[in-house]
Amino acid sequence: MDLVIKNGTIVTAAETYVADVAIKDGKIAMLGKNLDVTGEKVVDASGKLVLPGAIDVHTHLAMPFGGTVSADSYLAGTRAAACGGTTTVFDYAIQRKGQGIVETVEARRAMAEPEACVDIAFHCAITDLAGGSLLEEFEAAVSYGVPSFKCFMVYKKEGMMVDDGTLAQILLKSKETGVLTNVHAENPDLIDIRIAEYLSRGKTSPWYHYMSRPEFVEAEADHRAIHWAKALNAPLYIVHLANREGAEAVTKARDQGYEVYAETCPQYLHFTKEVYKREDGRNFVCSPPIKGEESREALWAALRRGDIQTVATDHCPFQSYEKDWGKDDFTKIPNGCAGIENMYPYMLSAANEGKITFNKAVEVCSANPAKIFGCTEKGTVSPGADADIVIYDPEKDFTISRDKMHSDCDHTIWEGVTLHGYPVQTYSRGKLVYDNGNFTGEPGWGKFVKRAGRK
Amino acid sequence: MDLVIKNGTIVTAAETYVADVAIKDGKIAMLGKNLDVTGEKVVDASGKLVLPGAIDVHTHLAMPFGGTVSADSYLAGTRAAACGGTTTVFDYAIQRKGQGIVETVEARRAMAEPEACVDIAFHCAITDLAGGSLLEEFEAAVSYGVPSFKCFMVYKKEGMMVDDGTLAQILLKSKETGVLTNVHAENPDLIDIRIAEYLSRGKTSPWYHYMSRPEFVEAEADHRAIHWAKALNAPLYIVHLANREGAEAVTKARDQGYEVYAETCPQYLHFTKEVYKREDGRNFVCSPPIKGEESREALWAALRRGDIQTVATDHCPFQSYEKDWGKDDFTKIPNGCAGIENMYPYMLSAANEGKITFNKAVEVCSANPAKIFGCTEKGTVSPGADADIVIYDPEKDFTISRDKMHSDCDHTIWEGVTLHGYPVQTYSRGKLVYDNGNFTGEPGWGKFVKRAGRK
Amino acid sequence: MDLVIKNGTIVTAAETYVADVAIKDGKIAMLGKNLDVTGEKVVDASGKLVLPGAIDVHTHLAMPFGGTVSADSYLAGTRAAACGGTTTVFDYAIQRKGQGIVETVEARRAMAEPEACVDIAFHCAITDLAGGSLLEEFEAAVSYGVPSFKCFMVYKKEGMMVDDGTLAQILLKSKETGVLTNVHAENPDLIDIRIAEYLSRGKTSPWYHYMSRPEFVEAEADHRAIHWAKALNAPLYIVHLANREGAEAVTKARDQGYEVYAETCPQYLHFTKEVYKREDGRNFVCSPPIKGEESREALWAALRRGDIQTVATDHCPFQSYEKDWGKDDFTKIPNGCAGIENMYPYMLSAANEGKITFNKAVEVCSANPAKIFGCTEKGTVSPGADADIVIYDPEKDFTISRDKMHSDCDHTIWEGVTLHGYPVQTYSRGKLVYDNGNFTGEPGWGKFVKRAGRK
Amino acid sequence: MDLVIKNGTIVTAAETYVADVAIKDGKIAMLGKNLDVTGEKVVDASGKLVLPGAIDVHTHLAMPFGGTVSADSYLAGTRAAACGGTTTVFDYAIQRKGQGIVETVEARRAMAEPEACVDIAFHCAITDLAGGSLLEEFEAAVSYGVPSFKCFMVYKKEGMMVDDGTLAQILLKSKETGVLTNVHAENPDLIDIRIAEYLSRGKTSPWYHYMSRPEFVEAEADHRAIHWAKALNAPLYIVHLANREGAEAVTKARDQGYEVYAETCPQYLHFTKEVYKREDGRNFVCSPPIKGEESREALWAALRRGDIQTVATDHCPFQSYEKDWGKDDFTKIPNGCAGIENMYPYMLSAANEGKITFNKAVEVCSANPAKIFGCTEKGTVSPGADADIVIYDPEKDFTISRDKMHSDCDHTIWEGVTLHGYPVQTYSRGKLVYDNGNFTGEPGWGKFVKRAGRK
Repeated sequence: MDLVIKNGTIVTAAETYVADVAIKDGKIAMLGKNLDVTGEKVVDASGKLVLPGAIDVHTHLAMPFGGTVSADSYLAGTRAAACGGTTTVFDYAIQRKGQGIVETVEARRAMAEPEACVDIAFHCAITDLAGGSLLEEFEAAVSYGVPSFKCFMVYKKEGMMVDDGTLAQILLKSKETGVLTNVHAENPDLIDIRIAEYLSRGKTSPWYHYMSRPEFVEAEADHRAIHWAKALNAPLYIVHLANREGAEAVTKARDQGYEVYAETCPQYLHFTKEVYKREDGRNFVCSPPIKGEESREALWAALRRGDIQTVATDHCPFQSYEKDWGKDDFTKIPNGCAGIENMYPYMLSAANEGKITFNKAVEVCSANPAKIFGCTEKGTVSPGADADIVIYDPEKDFTISRDKMHSDCDHTIWEGVTLHGYPVQTYSRGKLVYDNGNFTGEPGWGKFVKRAGRK
Repeated sequence: MDLVIKNGTIVTAAETYVADVAIKDGKIAMLGKNLDVTGEKVVDASGKLVLPGAIDVHTHLAMPFGGTVSADSYLAGTRAAACGGTTTVFDYAIQRKGQGIVETVEARRAMAEPEACVDIAFHCAITDLAGGSLLEEFEAAVSYGVPSFKCFMVYKKEGMMVDDGTLAQILLKSKETGVLTNVHAENPDLIDIRIAEYLSRGKTSPWYHYMSRPEFVEAEADHRAIHWAKALNAPLYIVHLANREGAEAVTKARDQGYEVYAETCPQYLHFTKEVYKREDGRNFVCSPPIKGEESREALWAALRRGDIQTVATDHCPFQSYEKDWGKDDFTKIPNGCAGIENMYPYMLSAANEGKITFNKAVEVCSANPAKIFGCTEKGTVSPGADADIVIYDPEKDFTISRDKMHSDCDHTIWEGVTLHGYPVQTYSRGKLVYDNGNFTGEPGWGKFVKRAGRK
Repeated sequence: MDLVIKNGTIVTAAETYVADVAIKDGKIAMLGKNLDVTGEKVVDASGKLVLPGAIDVHTHLAMPFGGTVSADSYLAGTRAAACGGTTTVFDYAIQRKGQGIVETVEARRAMAEPEACVDIAFHCAITDLAGGSLLEEFEAAVSYGVPSFKCFMVYKKEGMMVDDGTLAQILLKSKETGVLTNVHAENPDLIDIRIAEYLSRGKTSPWYHYMSRPEFVEAEADHRAIHWAKALNAPLYIVHLANREGAEAVTKARDQGYEVYAETCPQYLHFTKEVYKREDGRNFVCSPPIKGEESREALWAALRRGDIQTVATDHCPFQSYEKDWGKDDFTKIPNGCAGIENMYPYMLSAANEGKITFNKAVEVCSANPAKIFGCTEKGTVSPGADADIVIYDPEKDFTISRDKMHSDCDHTIWEGVTLHGYPVQTYSRGKLVYDNGNFTGEPGWGKFVKRAGRK
Repeated sequence: MDLVIKNGTIVTAAETYVADVAIKDGKIAMLGKNLDVTGEKVVDASGKLVLPGAIDVHTHLAMPFGGTVSADSYLAGTRAAACGGTTTVFDYAIQRKGQGIVETVEARRAMAEPEACVDIAFHCAITDLAGGSLLEEFEAAVSYGVPSFKCFMVYKKEGMMVDDGTLAQILLKSKETGVLTNVHAENPDLIDIRIAEYLSRGKTSPWYHYMSRPEFVEAEADHRAIHWAKALNAPLYIVHLANREGAEAVTKARDQGYEVYAETCPQYLHFTKEVYKREDGRNFVCSPPIKGEESREALWAALRRGDIQTVATDHCPFQSYEKDWGKDDFTKIPNGCAGIENMYPYMLSAANEGKITFNKAVEVCSANPAKIFGCTEKGTVSPGADADIVIYDPEKDFTISRDKMHSDCDHTIWEGVTLHGYPVQTYSRGKLVYDNGNFTGEPGWGKFVKRAGRK
């Protein structure tokens, strides 16, 4: 065996038990009580948890946006991921008008592969159907290993929004071809008139970022997306759900038997809109904005009962000087925050504090992302699975600060937050990529994950 | 007294009792058992019902649309109204870009007043806020007597649609100024892609008018309009509601205490989508289209329990030769049907057959329209009210046919439908305008109804 | 004419207009603007409201209960009613095991008729089906004029409860015979164990009356009663509804098209459970107890939107010395409060303050009780109706105090409550029975109201 | 190793993968790809599924009921279980008035242990709180390993019903002591009056067993049990849920965050009430009865979306001659059917046919029962777990017939039903107890499962 992790408590989405894990050729070879095998390397995990690595299904690395480029390259982003126990990173490749889907993904894949420190997968964000002809490429995209496309229901002025007709066409074709349609759900018209009104009244602080797109502005688009999904009987995945009413709509649709999924992010689970009143409020500016306490609690409740299936980061950091562009006008603040290194530790800390079970943390950060998005060899600790493993010390406290992070971003919204329990090692396909505070991986190790389409 | 109607059974929205009605100067002067008064004219209404005249709050007279003009002039439309027991007609004055509200209404009023055979009121349909400045005219419009504006959520290509931001601004300003916002709720994007798809597949029969805008396409816009009304806490009135899911959404909003109203039309209560498969299917083409049996039943149920408050006609007839334009392409059929002469008889016949009470028929066709839209002296039979009165014979059967109608339109979708009970006389402010099959009124008699705004 | 009331503002459930009312032989003869008639008596009601008298559909006069007899005789109770603008009083005749329905009612009617100062009607409370044979008497009871029976779902130990099987039989037979089944909905088992527990812990203050039967104990029985009504498709009327969840259940059933009615009482609309912490908390002890603020608000909301149809008093007063029996043990307090003189003034004051419309106050206190319970000549001001009329001064303030009341009870829970507006005169079938603070009627004037059954 | 199962496809509630399983001392020792270990016994499971044994949490063995004793002894019942892939059987020990909980269980345990062929656990059905003192024994029962008690909401005449007050006390004490309260939810009063009515009308066929307790009779009790569980915030488990409305109530409660569980049975998933019209209808008589198609579909839907968590059998067979007692009177038919050998094969066949996933079949028949009822070492295939294993051949068809069954009952309601796929071997703690049609275990092998209480 290449590696044997002994005596750890293995936690999957469904089970918890003490056993040894033996790894060979990047795969989990054996699980057992006191395995009688020799390993080139043996790690004692007594008192530690042995978890599948997290899968962050929502990031924007090196993405041109808001007049600049998001602060983390594929190298920096996946390095930070490794150091936070995330062993698979999904990036959104954004189609420009006229581009093909595979063409769009291949361009980003070419940038990513030399840099990736952990495995990397892609969604494609579709902005234009090229008069419908792009629909003909859906099958090819699935074969290529990219069976999930995002539609922006917002960013109308920016030319990224698809209208309801286009969304409906994508839903229908997705159903037919085994694709899962993701949506960023907010209503652009309401945002525009509210922004115009606040600016005209001199209301320019980050608080008005929230006020321009409050709960009901997001909820409307959630309702609408779900309405189309139900009417067309097509599966739907709502990214970064951040409001109570939307969570209730997802619950209702699922109760009725529709295949509707929702993702939320740690920032929506931890913070509330009050952060926009802070001195550093602009650093928290992301879209959708963080909502009120009622929504925060509703998101936890939906997560617990299974009506939110995944947690991802929407990692999209910008440097302080870029955030400062909006000091006097919230519309000038590039939208997005760093989080890729914090997601798994944050959710596991929540488990450690009893807010959820560890099984649930693994389910939403790893098992469900793998199942929903077709990462067939990831998301669990079982024989034959990729040896993407995190060893987690539930006793180790950790206070997040910029200097301990591995992103290129110069600040973090999580500064000062103390977590109870923290990853001590991360393995990517059996290779140690993070060891007790230090990145030990290498650019180019990460491989493109060819995902399976839906049946 | 000018007129005494003796021994009739007076039916209002709330009550039913036998009494005499004495009328003077166009107003109801007295009600009583065996009134001891002399009248210039005395009518014996024994065995008949004495009802307030209907108020049709949704018509399009002499309206340029679909490349032509709707078939009924103000004269023909209000003449037909009189002959169907409708004593007040609301017309939609449609604002063209750049026009003011009062300006828009005054232009139509000038056309209408010389021709009107019964009283006439106006809504204004707003298509453009002129960069917001039109909002400043809301108060003036209310003072002028036009405190209700319609927004089209559809007809995007035709340049009549207002987007969600505009609708939200109108809702907010309406709440502030005592205006009631009406919406035509359908989703234009879905209609467009569905039309394009059907045409591309050679599906051009009237059935595909329905298929292009089925239940869920209307329901989405109902949900969206209600969502904004609730979020902004502004009153909302949905015109020509024609689907079950929308009716349920209205019910839910009302249960939650929101002021949301809905109107439906006789064509949605009587026919189903199956009419589009008929030889003369094109004659039934209107928007929203007539839906399935499930919706038809749901509309009756909502009407009975008070969750639909009004019945109106959306009277907008086109001649046969115009309807024929769409023989080979449903998109070429001008949208709209005649109905102004049929509404009250149809609803009263439904009461006569026990489907609803006569009180309910009066409520939805007269009392509620008066209350919701500020016709303070209409909608009932009580001292001081306008003497807009219908004498109705519950024993008289009537089979609708084109030759008995008083519209200028050369056909009717109601051809051959038999009603049980029929109006025998209609009085407009005490003047006999319809008498047993014959129009007895005169153009120019009808007055502009200056309506009261909401408090 | 016997009486002409001039220039008042007539308010019915549906309308509001200024007119004169002419009365002859106890009936309303004429309504009109400036009626040109002479009256034996003429009353100027300028600036006043002219209303139909209230109908209190829930009282317990001279009722043996809790080891004593309720404090108001038929004389005192109906005298107080007259002085509060209530012109029809429904009493509950409680069947004892073995008694027939008509027999039960006739015994009480014989007591009531010589004393009644206003008209009087009866419900029968059924406690025993005599092995089913009582069901055979339903039709006779309807013919007799008593087409409504109450079932207690509580008072198990007291032998008044009917079990679910009996209730189901009554519902079915009621549907068949045109009877309306009323229920007092609380769950006896939960009350019993909670009382036992509190007493065992020495918790004996009136607060524990509330704690023994809090919101969920009432709500369960509401749900259960509605469940049977829906399953058996029989009409149901819930008396003295006092909790939010029950109101929601009624709303839902009505949305689904079921004929479910609910009554609430002024004490549940005005006070909250906090009264049980007052020094005089025992005076407020009634069943169901007054609930929390959330319920209070929900009752108003349900009333406004029409999901609660009637307001009645559950008038059942006990003297202070009787209430004192429970000073050291809440279970010894006779259950019930006085209210018959306060209901209409309270609801009209709420209208005067803008909480509801005057039409709504008339609807829930007069028009709906008349319609639901078959008082065919009452509940409105229209030609032919009984001249049960209240003249109301909206400008006159009135602070309730025991010495101004006309009940025999020596205290009132409404002590010190100030109302805005107050009745100045009450007419019972044209006879003045209350005049500006003074009772002017006479015992024996009131007649038995033979009510119509449901069709 | 004692046993190595090679190359099978391991299916747990959460995962599916090919691996070897090595077993030692009745426990699973190792899982791995091509395990390099020697076993005393080696089984090749290529092309087969390797599953955790089922846990049937609802049986009645050797139970006195309906004037006789259920047909399967502990020996026969657990033998049949083994042959159907069920490796743990829960029996209901029914407390008689005055008995203690542990006393009740020990009496049945003493009967069971010498006979049990697979492991055996007990719930206690509580019929009497002995004036409350039984509540004091809850903790001791948990320590003893019996942390779940059933309450009958029905069987009032039979003296087994607990009233609502008792149920509430049990729920409260259960919450406090880590017990899970189970309920058999039907309404006794409605059943009684309906039975009386049908019998009086000579309606005595098995169809009237259904008619006496149709959907709404069960649903009411579901609502009521859930109402108490919510009000008292105590966990609740509804046994043998068989109707749509109840499933919806469970769903709603879970959406609101309450810990409410539901169990259904294969007979409710497969058959409909139409069976009661069959010649052999009496054989299907069980309580609650099998419902209509709408309920059947709703149960599958609730199962799929996780709102029904477990499938169990309610195994309670009676011999044909006993069933015949009710030939002329459905009330004389002993209630109950055999099913213990059919549950797992039936649910796995449903998976094989694509109705659910194999993971879901394992979840509801094994993993969830283990988790919900505290069988900490059962319900999965993972290192350290009991080696309760079923080898399943998805290619083997099997038509159920009495002669292939291992119960002592002389007939089966499943006669003639063909399943696709069938177990080929069952291991109980590593011991082969069923091999390809033959029982290979032995009485007394099965052990009492000491279960863990809830935290």
